[in-house]
Amino acid sequence: MSWQPLLRKYQEFLPINEQTPILSLHEGNTPLIEAKQLSKELGIRLFLKFEGMNPTGSFKDRGMVLAVTKALEEGNKTVICASTGNTSAAASAYAASAGMDSIVVIPDANIALGKLAQALTYGAKVISIKGNFDDALDIVREISKQEAYTLVNSVNPYRIEGQKTAAFEIVDELGFAPDYLAIPVGNAGNITAYWKGFKEYKEAGKMSSLPKMLGFEAEGAAALVKGEPILHPETIATAIRIGRPASWNGAMNAVQESQGVIDSVTDDEILEAYQLVARKEGVFVEPGSAASLAGIFKKWREGYLPKGSTVVSVLTGHGLKDPNIAVQTVNTKPTIVENNYDAVLQAIQSLTERG
Amino acid sequence: MSWQPLLRKYQEFLPINEQTPILSLHEGNTPLIEAKQLSKELGIRLFLKFEGMNPTGSFKDRGMVLAVTKALEEGNKTVICASTGNTSAAASAYAASAGMDSIVVIPDANIALGKLAQALTYGAKVISIKGNFDDALDIVREISKQEAYTLVNSVNPYRIEGQKTAAFEIVDELGFAPDYLAIPVGNAGNITAYWKGFKEYKEAGKMSSLPKMLGFEAEGAAALVKGEPILHPETIATAIRIGRPASWNGAMNAVQESQGVIDSVTDDEILEAYQLVARKEGVFVEPGSAASLAGIFKKWREGYLPKGSTVVSVLTGHGLKDPNIAVQTVNTKPTIVENNYDAVLQAIQSLTERG
Repeated sequence: MSWQPLLRKYQEFLPINEQTPILSLHEGNTPLIEAKQLSKELGIRLFLKFEGMNPTGSFKDRGMVLAVTKALEEGNKTVICASTGNTSAAASAYAASAGMDSIVVIPDANIALGKLAQALTYGAKVISIKGNFDDALDIVREISKQEAYTLVNSVNPYRIEGQKTAAFEIVDELGFAPDYLAIPVGNAGNITAYWKGFKEYKEAGKMSSLPKMLGFEAEGAAALVKGEPILHPETIATAIRIGRPASWNGAMNAVQESQGVIDSVTDDEILEAYQLVARKEGVFVEPGSAASLAGIFKKWREGYLPKGSTVVSVLTGHGLKDPNIAVQTVNTKPTIVENNYDAVLQAIQSLTERG
Repeated sequence: MSWQPLLRKYQEFLPINEQTPILSLHEGNTPLIEAKQLSKELGIRLFLKFEGMNPTGSFKDRGMVLAVTKALEEGNKTVICASTGNTSAAASAYAASAGMDSIVVIPDANIALGKLAQALTYGAKVISIKGNFDDALDIVREISKQEAYTLVNSVNPYRIEGQKTAAFEIVDELGFAPDYLAIPVGNAGNITAYWKGFKEYKEAGKMSSLPKMLGFEAEGAAALVKGEPILHPETIATAIRIGRPASWNGAMNAVQESQGVIDSVTDDEILEAYQLVARKEGVFVEPGSAASLAGIFKKWREGYLPKGSTVVSVLTGHGLKDPNIAVQTVNTKPTIVENNYDAVLQAIQSLTERG
């Protein structure tokens, strides 16, 4: 077959060997889309790394395929995590594919069942505790210490190892490293993983220069920018609504070593980028994903990005993950007209301003 | 770059040339996933062609990229369609990417705004008429005849030309044609396209034998099985809820020439397959997609599929397209327990039956 599983393709950079029983749902190998219209408008070479095209719809699949593969290799039969979103979807999908059980522990407050639709469909056993998210995480950490359960939350080191493969793919596709890599920052594991990937690929002689890392938090959850944890993070971009990033040091290290930037963007800026990338490039992303693009626009306005530079925007999840936001933010509603040719044609001409 | 646009890759089989201004959102190149657990249980070699991993989440992208590319080549600035679902999403995404306008005309009755979230986000102008779907289709056909608007509903012949590339990919991946190709049948364009693709690839010497085509309609919309249009089609699988298939002759021809089968499956059978493929293989599909797998189970129970035969199940759309169905059909709800270690551990042991 022409296609190679992600873990096999980059095996030499990963903690696996020929005997490892690797899993695959055809994660990775996501498109690097040239943003033709935005590139022209900004005067840069802008590429979109669309991670929403992973099998469960987010970048989490890259780390999870390795975490669950290692659990399988070690003989464990159950993976466990505390999550209300993309992590639980990825964990339960790979567990299903491995014939393993998956346990998802969630806080009971205000969890929309829709957010769990994916995990439940993949067969996860979902336990809701009368407590908050930190309680849920504490309990699953404790359980994973004492029993034959593998914890697959971001404290699992294989997650970052798997996620770094996205950096490899960008370099393989371009033939070189971009000048700038812009990425949304929530828990900060992904920026840590990309930087690790770029450095390892350079050491292996696959590229000659490193990109500057540009990390963008949502303003209401900008712990790294403010230099302290945010007790009650708030942003429309739920995927990065995290006030106490687990990979704090990894993220700050990536920014400092690469001479990059950590900055924040407002919800309005995120929603503007979210709509622009759909309307100008045909790419529909999760709101949190648009933080990287909103950050690029902000830095461009500040004159930070030299003309002609190559910039990659990491778009972490698919827009179908959060259809409600789409409905809420779209400011054009259907135009209602009579059931005849003339009425429709007139409406078209008025809407497209060519009447 | 290592990656080739779909239209370029299969250019020799498509109505384009080197000068055609081809579009791409990295459609196609979708995974052919080996269904390990189901293969073992059924005693066949079962592969899942997961078309939900196209950029807008359904197989429609393959035909639409060609239809919009040809509209662009011909100098048109606007594409138009009547659709409440996947077609409008694909049309508006490629129009956005080409810098063209997209017009979507819909009937006003009972259209959930959520179904249009994708098209609206991609920037489609949506016009709702006080009439039914057939009225909408009649009007857009008429408008596309008289003005500089390209109709991209399934009557556009480029749709089937683009869709046939999925058959090429299956043969390229396996190295040969499967013994059986199972596919959901709604409007019947896709089964027509696959059969055209297989025959053309065989003529070009890329394969030696042709598959038997197995088409499956939903029982409440089984026009081809019953031999007459269904006036009021009903099924939970909205993507194939079509009572008057546009490619009627193409579908029946595919089944007859290949000595295959056209059959129907019930909504219960569809939902069972929908849940099984998520739980056993980690693949989350749109309910309509599961009709092909439900059909394979039915034919297996009837003893129709020889042991060891190679069977490909076409899964046409991503589960995230219809999260409400997931929530409604999942029969396990979260287990609610107290906020402590012992309560959670006890719940886990009881849920996984290893207590």
